[in-house]
Order: sequence, then structure tokens, then C-alpha cells
Amino acid sequence: MDLAHVAPGLPTHSVERHWLTVELGARSYSIVIGNGLLGDPATWAGLPRAQTVAIVTNEVVAPLYLQPLRAALAPHYSRVLDIVLPDGEAHKDWPTLNRIFDALLEHACDRKTVLFALGGGVVGDMTGFAAACYQRGVPFVQVPTTLLAQVDSSVGGKTAINHPRGKNMIGAFYQPLRVVCDLDTLATLPPREYSAGLAEVIKYGPIYDLAFLDWIEAHIERLCARDADALAYAVRRSCEIKAAVVGQDERESGLRAILNFGHTFGHAIEAGLGYGQWLHGEAVGCGMVMAATLSQRLGRVSPTFVRRLTRLIAAAGLPTRAPRLGSDNAARYLALMRVDKKADAGAIRFVVVDEAGHAEVRAVPDAVVAEVIEACSLS
Amino acid sequence: MDLAHVAPGLPTHSVERHWLTVELGARSYSIVIGNGLLGDPATWAGLPRAQTVAIVTNEVVAPLYLQPLRAALAPHYSRVLDIVLPDGEAHKDWPTLNRIFDALLEHACDRKTVLFALGGGVVGDMTGFAAACYQRGVPFVQVPTTLLAQVDSSVGGKTAINHPRGKNMIGAFYQPLRVVCDLDTLATLPPREYSAGLAEVIKYGPIYDLAFLDWIEAHIERLCARDADALAYAVRRSCEIKAAVVGQDERESGLRAILNFGHTFGHAIEAGLGYGQWLHGEAVGCGMVMAATLSQRLGRVSPTFVRRLTRLIAAAGLPTRAPRLGSDNAARYLALMRVDKKADAGAIRFVVVDEAGHAEVRAVPDAVVAEVIEACSLS
Repeated sequence: MDLAHVAPGLPTHSVERHWLTVELGARSYSIVIGNGLLGDPATWAGLPRAQTVAIVTNEVVAPLYLQPLRAALAPHYSRVLDIVLPDGEAHKDWPTLNRIFDALLEHACDRKTVLFALGGGVVGDMTGFAAACYQRGVPFVQVPTTLLAQVDSSVGGKTAINHPRGKNMIGAFYQPLRVVCDLDTLATLPPREYSAGLAEVIKYGPIYDLAFLDWIEAHIERLCARDADALAYAVRRSCEIKAAVVGQDERESGLRAILNFGHTFGHAIEAGLGYGQWLHGEAVGCGMVMAATLSQRLGRVSPTFVRRLTRLIAAAGLPTRAPRLGSDNAARYLALMRVDKKADAGAIRFVVVDEAGHAEVRAVPDAVVAEVIEACSLS
Repeated sequence: MDLAHVAPGLPTHSVERHWLTVELGARSYSIVIGNGLLGDPATWAGLPRAQTVAIVTNEVVAPLYLQPLRAALAPHYSRVLDIVLPDGEAHKDWPTLNRIFDALLEHACDRKTVLFALGGGVVGDMTGFAAACYQRGVPFVQVPTTLLAQVDSSVGGKTAINHPRGKNMIGAFYQPLRVVCDLDTLATLPPREYSAGLAEVIKYGPIYDLAFLDWIEAHIERLCARDADALAYAVRRSCEIKAAVVGQDERESGLRAILNFGHTFGHAIEAGLGYGQWLHGEAVGCGMVMAATLSQRLGRVSPTFVRRLTRLIAAAGLPTRAPRLGSDNAARYLALMRVDKKADAGAIRFVVVDEAGHAEVRAVPDAVVAEVIEACSLS
């Protein structure tokens, strides 16, 4: 029904939206994808009753989207608190997380308080972890405003903060009540952040859906231009794949680890350069080139496949050559990767792919990994 | 079968033990209660395989029991790490928790690493929370060495650290793999800690089992003398009740809150005086007198019942008069209690009891609570 026909006074902005479900039994929830969602009351219907809600966001996102979200939530809750954090991966740490706890306790927020994570992956991961821990668990809603958060980090309940010795080392599996992906928010994303999000979109191709990889290749220019239809499809298909994988393996006892394609190398880049130097998606883009190269060394993909993926990552505006981490470059990478969460009894485990669009996790001898690191690093 | 008869060369120390089960579906686990458990290989059979385990303990417990536990675990694991924390509730905070993460990451501990919490409630709560968060969750075993931890805090999966504004405000529900209560460790407990543990034993009477309350009253002198048989029964019955309650309501959506009898007042005492001034069990002992007095004001129990409970708490060596928290005593208590986790929309909720041995949680007007605080406070 087109509301414009029955109520001519209402805004005629058409709200097309897709609802997907992450199937996790009693913890199942919806992902809503569309334009104009933030200010639409229907987006927020059916959430639990509470006296207080708290919107957690950062200094960059707050001026853009805090007021519209506040306005949309204000009719439903007697108190809408704001908690504005500094921006960036460098702040995904305990002191910043504690600012959320300080604010909640200062306002005597009870166990029914709902947290809203308004921002990118850092805001989502920290707000989710704060929700998991505050009074041993309060409900939360993801409102991702970056491409990376919409297609990946806001879905699936992985929450965490970083430790100086490793990314996302302290965290919880804790599912949101709902994920709201308002595509309109992507219009304000800086180009570097946008490209970083494309890395996680591209990821779904080689690990799960070669037809999607073909589609991304065919539409990479339209995607880079933020074409609305291309973007809507990319976000939807990415969320479908993520939801399907998480629904089969919530706590990463097996399958879910394939979503870490490129991430073992990428986390080492992020930690080795210092959090915030490269964006997470940039490190993952480069990490996928390294992981594809490793897959080739293991005889799983052809050099042509590696070149094809490398070209696509470059076309998305992402780095494809790894930074050197000092004079003992490979050794430093290996040391950083040894604390990766997939490691088992000291052996680093990598997501490798084949040309049939399948991924698996396996241990690889250090010597082979070291060769790949050197071959992929800037000279 | 008495091993001494078939293998005369073996030590004849008889190991009598009780196994209880906390029924939580896939998260069910055993509580083992007995003497001589720490050094007995049978105690540690059936735990998951891992390359590394880490024993988390404190400076007071380490000299007493770290080596026996190390020796018992060493045959099963290639690395047994020690993490020795400072002692006391004042250290149940983020910087101390982070020492666990630092040590685990320094030794590149993977997701299969098993943590062992060797110590009292503080060590158990912190180790459990560290296990809940490290790499989004690793397994852990509770090895409580205080009476309070054996009868209460080690069972049921409540883990947390304190925040300056409130006790246990940051934490998780995260169940251990096993709870091992070696009664022999209670022999070294300082008298003040021992009395603090009796507070949580006494608690189970008024909220759940009046026959147990009668038994405690009849045996309070033997309990205070640490009579082995009395102690064994007190620990076992306490764990049975705790397991039954937790099995019905793991995440405290209802029934489980009754285990907080005396704790709302008690937490205010602990936070108001500064963590570590009064032991948790001391604050709970006094808090039960206050909660019983509140129950009387609400017409649920007689003055005789309050006197009886007060006498028993005093006989256990616990304080029964509340400390004054400044000149605005009642207002300060109320402010501290308003951040209690049972609070709902600003209303503080209390566990109240009746003379039939039932407890329930209800909101009480501030004015009534203020009267009770003044009536129970030191003049």
C-alpha cells in the first residue's frame, strides 16, 4: 500500500525495506535493511519496554544521526541518554568502554535499560560488549552507520575490545535484539571508510558464493560510486550470507571461522602498525590478498584467481601490499598471529579458499607462512 | 570398595566425597564436596584436554594450596601457569582483572586454555569473568578455598568485578565446568573469613529451608568450632539449595533473586564504607538483620523471628548493627541501593521473608526503608 494515496499530507518518501532473520532459537532477531529507516517509527516498534534507553555513539556520528534517532525513540521511553565516545579503533579499549559503564551507573540505569549502538564497527563492538557485561547483561540494538558494520560486524553477536597484544581479545558472544541498516547513512561515509566496508562485502564471494563474487566484479564501479540499487543489493546479500553462517555456528566452533578470511593476516597488520593506522577493512583487504596467496601456495587456487581477487580489492580502493613490520618482518607477523583466536596449541590457523567457493580453516607451517608474508610485503 | 583392603601399600586416607549436579541442560556441571580432594587425581579426571591451564589465585592462598594443585594438574597438561593476584575485595576491579588477560596473552594462551580459580569469592568471581571474556570465552573450574565461596559464590555462574559506584556491576553469567570444594582448605581460614562464610550458610534457612535454619541454630557452636561433620553437612546442604535454585532460574529472571536476601543492604554497606572494609559476608550478615527488620515492618515476620535470626548471626561472629554512612545516613544508603541490580525503574527492590520459609522480591517505599536503616544503624 502506498501511503501517499491514502494520506496525501504524509511525506511521500517511499520506505522499501527488507527484513532478514538470524535464526538462533530463543535468541533469533531481525536485520532490517532499507532507506529512511532511522526516522520511521515502524523501525522501532516491538522493542522491549523500558524506562531508559541509552544511545552510544561517537564524536563523528553524533552530529549527523544522534538527533534523528533521539527523536524517533523519545515517544517510546521516558529517558533517552546519549553517550558520545571518541572516534576510532585506537579507542576500542577498556578506558573508553568504562565511560559507558560510568554513564549508565551515574544515571542509575537498571537491568531493563536498552542500549543502542549508533555508529560503525567500533561503536557496535563496544556497545555490544558493554551490554553483555552491564549488570551481567542488558538488551541492545545495533544501528550500524558504516558499510563495514552493516554488512559484517553488527550481525552475529561478536562483541569485544582490543588488548595491546591482540585485537578483539576481550569480549563476548552476545546477540542484539535487532539490527537496523539505514542505507541513507552511508551517504556521509568518508571514502576511506567506504572502501574499508567493501573489503567485507568482497570477502563473502570467495568463501561462500562465487556468483556473488562475479556480481561484485561486474558492479564494482557502481558500488564505488555508491549507486543506491547496487549498494542495497550488496548489503542485503552480505547480510543473508552472514546470517546463514551465524545461524549454523553461533559461537564459532566450526563453520563461522570462514568469515575470518583475510583476518589473521589483517589483525597482525592492525596490531603491528598500532590500532587505527590502517582501518580494519583496509587490513582485511590486504589480508585477503595474503590469504589467497597462501591458498595458492597450498595448491588450492590458481595464480589467475589470486590476480583476479587482488585486482578487485585494488578496484575497491584498498591496499594490496602488506606493510613491513620492522627488519624481522615475517617473524613479527608470525608472533602477532600466534595470539589469534583461531590458534590451537601454538599452531596458527588460516582460512584458505579454493576455486569452487569453499573455505576451510587449517594450520600451516611457519616457513610457508613466512614465504607468503615476504612475497606480499612492500619492498 | 575400600582401596586399603586391595592395595595395602596405598595411603589409607579415606576420601569421602559427595557429587551434586547443577542441572542446566548442556551447561550442567558437578559440585564435588569432600576432604583431601585437591591432591587426588580422581578429582580432576574428565576435564577437557588442553595444552595449557592457568591457576588464578591470590597472595594469601598461593603459599598454602598452589603447589598441591599444580602437582595434581601437572600430569594432565603440558603447561601449568600461575597467576597470583593481590588479596581482597578492594582488588576486584578492572586493573587486577587485566593482569589475568596480560598473563594469558603473554603466554599466547589459546581458546582451549582452562582457567582454575583457586581461592575465595573474589578470585572466583574475577577468574570466572576473565574466562567469560578471554577470547570471548574459555572453560574454567572453581576450586573455592573459603567457606563463603564453597557454599555460595562458586556455584551458579555469577561472575563480576566491582565498579566504584556499585558492587558486581560489570560481569557475566558464565558457568564453570566443575566446582571442587575441598573441606580441608577451610582449616586455614582466618576466623573473620570463616564467620563471613557462615552468613551465606545461614541465609539459606529463612529463604528456603526452615528445617536447615533449625539445624544451623542447633549446631552453631560446632560450626564455629569447625567440627568436620557439621561443616561437611552445612556445605553440602547449602550447595544443594543453591544448585536447586540456580537450576530453576539461571539468569535471575525470578526465583534466583531470593539468594540476595540481605544483599541489597549489604552491598550498600560494602560500597559505602569502601570495598574491603567489611567483608562481603559481614555486610550480608548485618544486611540480613536489616532485611528481616524490613520484613517485620511489612508484617511478614514477628519481632521474635527477627531477634532469633539476629542472635544466630551474632553467634556466628558477625556484626548485627549497620555502620553509619555519614550524617545523611539513610539518604546515603538509599542512593547506594538505587543502583542495585534488582532495581526497576528507579524503585529499589528487596528480598523479604516470611515465617513459612518463603522469600519474595518486592519494591518498598523509600520512607519505610529509611526507617529500617535508622532503626538498625549504630547510634
